[in-house]
Amino acid sequence: MNLAIVGATGAVGQVTLRLIEARYPQHRNLKLLASKRSAGRKMNVNGKTFVVEETTDDSFDDVDIAFISVSTEASRRFGPVAARAGAMVIDDSSAFRMEQAVPLVVPEVNGSDLLWHDGIVSIPNCSTTPLVMVAHPLRQASPIRRIVADTYQSVSGAGGAAMDELREQTRTVMHGGPAEPNAQPQRIAFNVFPQIDGFNETGYTVEEQKMIDESRKILHAPDIALSATCVRVPVLVSHCVAAHLEFEQPVSAGEARELLSQMPGVTVQDDPAASVYPMPVSAAGCDDVFVGRIRKDASHPNGLAMWVVTDNLVKGAALNALQIAEEAVALGAVHGQRR
Amino acid sequence: MNLAIVGATGAVGQVTLRLIEARYPQHRNLKLLASKRSAGRKMNVNGKTFVVEETTDDSFDDVDIAFISVSTEASRRFGPVAARAGAMVIDDSSAFRMEQAVPLVVPEVNGSDLLWHDGIVSIPNCSTTPLVMVAHPLRQASPIRRIVADTYQSVSGAGGAAMDELREQTRTVMHGGPAEPNAQPQRIAFNVFPQIDGFNETGYTVEEQKMIDESRKILHAPDIALSATCVRVPVLVSHCVAAHLEFEQPVSAGEARELLSQMPGVTVQDDPAASVYPMPVSAAGCDDVFVGRIRKDASHPNGLAMWVVTDNLVKGAALNALQIAEEAVALGAVHGQRR
Repeated sequence: MNLAIVGATGAVGQVTLRLIEARYPQHRNLKLLASKRSAGRKMNVNGKTFVVEETTDDSFDDVDIAFISVSTEASRRFGPVAARAGAMVIDDSSAFRMEQAVPLVVPEVNGSDLLWHDGIVSIPNCSTTPLVMVAHPLRQASPIRRIVADTYQSVSGAGGAAMDELREQTRTVMHGGPAEPNAQPQRIAFNVFPQIDGFNETGYTVEEQKMIDESRKILHAPDIALSATCVRVPVLVSHCVAAHLEFEQPVSAGEARELLSQMPGVTVQDDPAASVYPMPVSAAGCDDVFVGRIRKDASHPNGLAMWVVTDNLVKGAALNALQIAEEAVALGAVHGQRR
Repeated sequence: MNLAIVGATGAVGQVTLRLIEARYPQHRNLKLLASKRSAGRKMNVNGKTFVVEETTDDSFDDVDIAFISVSTEASRRFGPVAARAGAMVIDDSSAFRMEQAVPLVVPEVNGSDLLWHDGIVSIPNCSTTPLVMVAHPLRQASPIRRIVADTYQSVSGAGGAAMDELREQTRTVMHGGPAEPNAQPQRIAFNVFPQIDGFNETGYTVEEQKMIDESRKILHAPDIALSATCVRVPVLVSHCVAAHLEFEQPVSAGEARELLSQMPGVTVQDDPAASVYPMPVSAAGCDDVFVGRIRKDASHPNGLAMWVVTDNLVKGAALNALQIAEEAVALGAVHGQRR
């Protein structure tokens, strides 16, 4: 099976290659693609040296699955090109997520949606994935009516340049220098700000609206009421969500803990007496979605509150994409409905 | 009027002295008190050098108002001593806040509660104050039924040692060293963690329960349903709250903006198109509670979402204490009901 990694030199692309080495240590049928700027760079994967090529209209001949993690604009440009060339496109951008013909997939939640793709499958925004991973199993206890989710999102969600900026800005500020934002809309060193992406007319950011719309699509639950405030925090990797869920019937914290611990891809870390709960630094580099602080929500008789953390580059992006490929292979759905 | 500052060398004590210089530039009738460890230290206030004295049972003779910002244990020890000596005690700890005989006061919200104190007045937790400052004026539009509040709290809320730890740990981590927590329960450099203070049996932290209980007491609204997740973030000064309020009737964002801009001590910073909203670095050192991102909550027909930021050492502590003293003087209530 020939795999193409579009955006191989980016933050998510690099994690994708690391995960390919971990999961498929023999696989060398790879094509590493990127923008013109990164073309010519050499990268080692599974003991073989690959030269990064510029992505063009001719890049996708003989490619079976193309993982795309680039700008939304570049996805719009090359996603359909790759699909027309016969590749299954697994796209990390928001370009196609809400299109009716495109499944938006977290395999543990709605893997069967891969049966009806038409060449392009989208993966959710990195703050949506952890939320639906915990919401889905809890629906076995009772249907969800409403979710309020406030996020604590690391700079790697904005790419490698934002990670560099956090490091450099922190150094500058600690030496008394000025903190001029460049890769981010505001200073991030020793600061937080409630803006990820631009604003809609409703006053919500595009990122917040993604959490709302994408969660409903993945959960097949257009009626769940959702609100979010998405906040950037000075953390390099991992996103956190303070989530407040309201059910049709009361759900106990114990029942929730039980259902969550049975969910594949979810690890419960919930021992407050021992100060055990998920955190960005402990989740970074791990595959799972971690959940803790599970408690009856004091503000609603049918509510639960919890704290959810995942590595936004792993399950929030690269791992979810690879798992979609694996699930599509298992379902015999790599070529979707096209043939 | 003789003022005593108990905990003069601490994070809040130092801000109190700075605010005394700003608000009462002629005032020199001061007694600076602290623990034995800090006794003997010299501090300049309004051009006069004061020697910090150890707090003892005899410290409060001739003191009219004692501002106490020390540990809860030390407040329990010296608060009643100062009150018995005839001082009006304005206490920053959680020692007395929920006692029925002790008013818990944010002057702009419930200043008239100063009329019935019995020697001790408490100021709220630094995460409660900004929340009630925005909740109170909005009740003019419609009664509040429920509040969900998730916080982003700076390390200065845990005192000067935690501020030093954030700086030093950040330096260590940037040089590849280990991050060993000491003043905090977890590593804070490039990390966040959902634990402030210990845990109750409900699974809520003491800090979260304070937000719930104190808000109800200050607002005289025992029926408001409240939930909170309190999170420490790697920021030096200022606390943020992502707040979701539910009203009996719908309240528009415009109406909310109007009511909030008329509230003394609140500044609306809400121009998303220009990326204008409150942040820790812009609120630090300022007197006001700042509010932005005011919008209809997408998850409830009668809901509003907003983002609230204030300097936790200023309005969250020292300023609120001074304003209580000013209000008590204006009301002729310094000596409360005791005489």
